[in-house]
Amino acid sequence: MDQKVGNRTVKFSNSPVILESAATGSKKESEGKLATDFDLLVPDPLWDEKSWETAESKFLKNAIIIAMEKAGLDWSQIGCIVSGDLMNQCTSTAFAIKDFHRPLLGVYGACSTMAESMLVASTFISSGFIDYAIAATSSHFCSAEKQFRTPLEYGGQRTPTAQWTVTGSGAAVLGKSGKGPKITHATLGKIVDRGVTDANNMGAAMAPAFVDTMINHFKDTGRNVSDYDLILSGDLGFVGRELAVRLMAENGLDFSTNYDDCGCMIYDRKKQDVHAGGSGCACAGTVFCGHIMRKLKSGELKRVLFAPTGALMSPTTCMQGENILGISYAIAIEG
Amino acid sequence: MDQKVGNRTVKFSNSPVILESAATGSKKESEGKLATDFDLLVPDPLWDEKSWETAESKFLKNAIIIAMEKAGLDWSQIGCIVSGDLMNQCTSTAFAIKDFHRPLLGVYGACSTMAESMLVASTFISSGFIDYAIAATSSHFCSAEKQFRTPLEYGGQRTPTAQWTVTGSGAAVLGKSGKGPKITHATLGKIVDRGVTDANNMGAAMAPAFVDTMINHFKDTGRNVSDYDLILSGDLGFVGRELAVRLMAENGLDFSTNYDDCGCMIYDRKKQDVHAGGSGCACAGTVFCGHIMRKLKSGELKRVLFAPTGALMSPTTCMQGENILGISYAIAIEG
Repeated sequence: MDQKVGNRTVKFSNSPVILESAATGSKKESEGKLATDFDLLVPDPLWDEKSWETAESKFLKNAIIIAMEKAGLDWSQIGCIVSGDLMNQCTSTAFAIKDFHRPLLGVYGACSTMAESMLVASTFISSGFIDYAIAATSSHFCSAEKQFRTPLEYGGQRTPTAQWTVTGSGAAVLGKSGKGPKITHATLGKIVDRGVTDANNMGAAMAPAFVDTMINHFKDTGRNVSDYDLILSGDLGFVGRELAVRLMAENGLDFSTNYDDCGCMIYDRKKQDVHAGGSGCACAGTVFCGHIMRKLKSGELKRVLFAPTGALMSPTTCMQGENILGISYAIAIEG
Repeated sequence: MDQKVGNRTVKFSNSPVILESAATGSKKESEGKLATDFDLLVPDPLWDEKSWETAESKFLKNAIIIAMEKAGLDWSQIGCIVSGDLMNQCTSTAFAIKDFHRPLLGVYGACSTMAESMLVASTFISSGFIDYAIAATSSHFCSAEKQFRTPLEYGGQRTPTAQWTVTGSGAAVLGKSGKGPKITHATLGKIVDRGVTDANNMGAAMAPAFVDTMINHFKDTGRNVSDYDLILSGDLGFVGRELAVRLMAENGLDFSTNYDDCGCMIYDRKKQDVHAGGSGCACAGTVFCGHIMRKLKSGELKRVLFAPTGALMSPTTCMQGENILGISYAIAIEG
C-alpha cells in the first residue's frame, strides 16, 4: 500500500522508475537555450502534414516512439499510455497513440498535464495495476494560437505578458523497476481561483495554484525548500515566476535560489521574440523529458520537485467572462 | 497490491465501495423511462443560468452535492474529485467543482468518462493514495449541439442514426470501506479505429471498442457472460446496440439476454423524438448513478459489468476527414 501523507500527498511504497524519456521540438525550440537536450528537432512545424493539428500529433507520436526505443521495452509490456493535450477533446493524444494499440487513460490538466500524467501513471504502477506506462503530453504554437486566440494569418499583436506555446512533446517511460530516477512522492492539485480574467497573462492566473501546491507539499511531507536541488514550475514564464517567488516569500518560503520555471528556461529571451517566455503542455513536457532528465541521469541533479501548472479555461469561458482557474500537480523525483 | 489479471484488467485487493451516487437531469429526462430514478429533475435546461455551458456545470455541481449529502461525508474526507466532460478543455468539470476546494484529477474519455473516472478513483483508493473520492461526469444537449454540431436556432435536421445528448450529470462517492456495491475489477480501454467517419452515427463508431473491451475482460478474468446479471454499455443507442450484439455473437459470446445499453434505456422511444437513443457522458452517468445503483443497493442486481464507450473526435478532426476513434472502459461491480 502507498502511504497517504498529510492532506494531498502520497509516498509511493514502490517508487516508480522513470526508465527513459524523450523530447521533440521544432524551429523555435532549436534556437532556444535547451536545444541540445531535445531528442529530435524538426525545423518545419507542419512536418509534412496538412494541418497543425495532425502535425502536433506527429510530434507526440514520435516523442513516444523515441522514448520507447531508448527504454528498449516491447510494446506489449506497456500497460497504459497516460496522456492529454490542449486540443479540443484531447485529439492530439488520441490520434498520436491509436496505432500503438495499447490502453489509454486520457487526462486533462491543461499545461500541468505532464505532471498529472506522471502522477496517474505512477499510482497505477505502484498499485500493481500495470508494470510499465508511458506518460506524455504535447502542444503546438500554431494549433494553440488557432484554437485559443486568432489564426496566425491574422497577425494579431501580442501583449508583453503573453507567452509562446512550445511546439513539441515530452514522453516518459515509467516502470515498476529498472534503472533511472525514482518518483518518490506526488501531491495532488487543487483548483485555485484568484479572479484573473486576462487570457494574455496566464502566468498571473497560474502562479497562485503553484504556490498552493508547494505549501501543501511541504506541509504534507515535512520537507523544506532546501531539501531539493531544484524546484521547477512548468510555464509561469517571467511574469508568473516573479509572482511565485514573491507569494512564496509571503508564506515564509525562500524560492530565490533553487527555483526555476521551464517557461523561463526553454527559449533565449535576448535573441527570441517570446515575450514572457514559453508555455503550453510541451513546455514542462520537453524541458523535463529532455533537459531535466539528462541532469537527473548524470547525477548533476539529485532531488527535483517538478510542479507544472495548468490554466483551466476555454475560449468560450473566457468570452463569457469567467475567471481563469489554476491547478498544479507536484512530483518529487530522486536521481 | 492490486492484482494484474491478464493484459488489461486489475482485480482490486481492497475493492472500493460505491457509498452513494446521484443523478440530475432536465425535461427530456423527466419524460423518459427512468425519470423516477433521478435525484433531481430541473425542467428548464438553462436552470436560471445565462449560458448552456454554465447550466451544464450546475447540473454536475448539484449531482456531486446530492451524492455527498447522501453519503454523509465531510468534504475534508474527499481525497480527490475525478471528473471530465465533453466541453472543450473540460470546463464543465472545472467550474462545477472549483468551489468544493478539493483536489481534481481531470480525465477525458468522451462518453466513456463515467467508467474512466470510476476506474481512476478506484485505483487511487485501492493504492492507498486517498480514502474517498468522487467520480463524476456531465453532458448537456444544448451545449453539445452548439459545440459539436450546429446551434439549436439553426434547426438542423437530424439523421435516423443520430442520438440525443442527455442533459444532466451522474456523480458517485467512492470509499475504501463502508456500505454499498463494490468495484471488484476494472478493464482498461484501448482505442479501436474501424474507419467510421459519420459523426451522426456514433453507435457504429463505438460498438467495436465495446466489443474489444468485452473480449479482453472475459479473457483476462476467465469469467463468462452469464457471470453477470447485467452487462451495460453506455450510449451505443439502438444502432450501436444491435451492432454490438452481432459482433459479440461473431466472437462466440451471447449478448442476447443479459445485455443492455443506457442509450436505449433512458428515453421512451415511442413517445420521445430521440432517434437512435440517448448519448453523451451523462447518459451512462445518470443511468448508472440513478437507475443501476438503486437496483444494486436493493439487491435486484448482484453483479453488473458497466462499460460505457467514448468517441474520441472533435469537430476539427471530423472536418479534416479523420476517423472517429472508439474507446471503452469496463468496471465489474458486486452488490
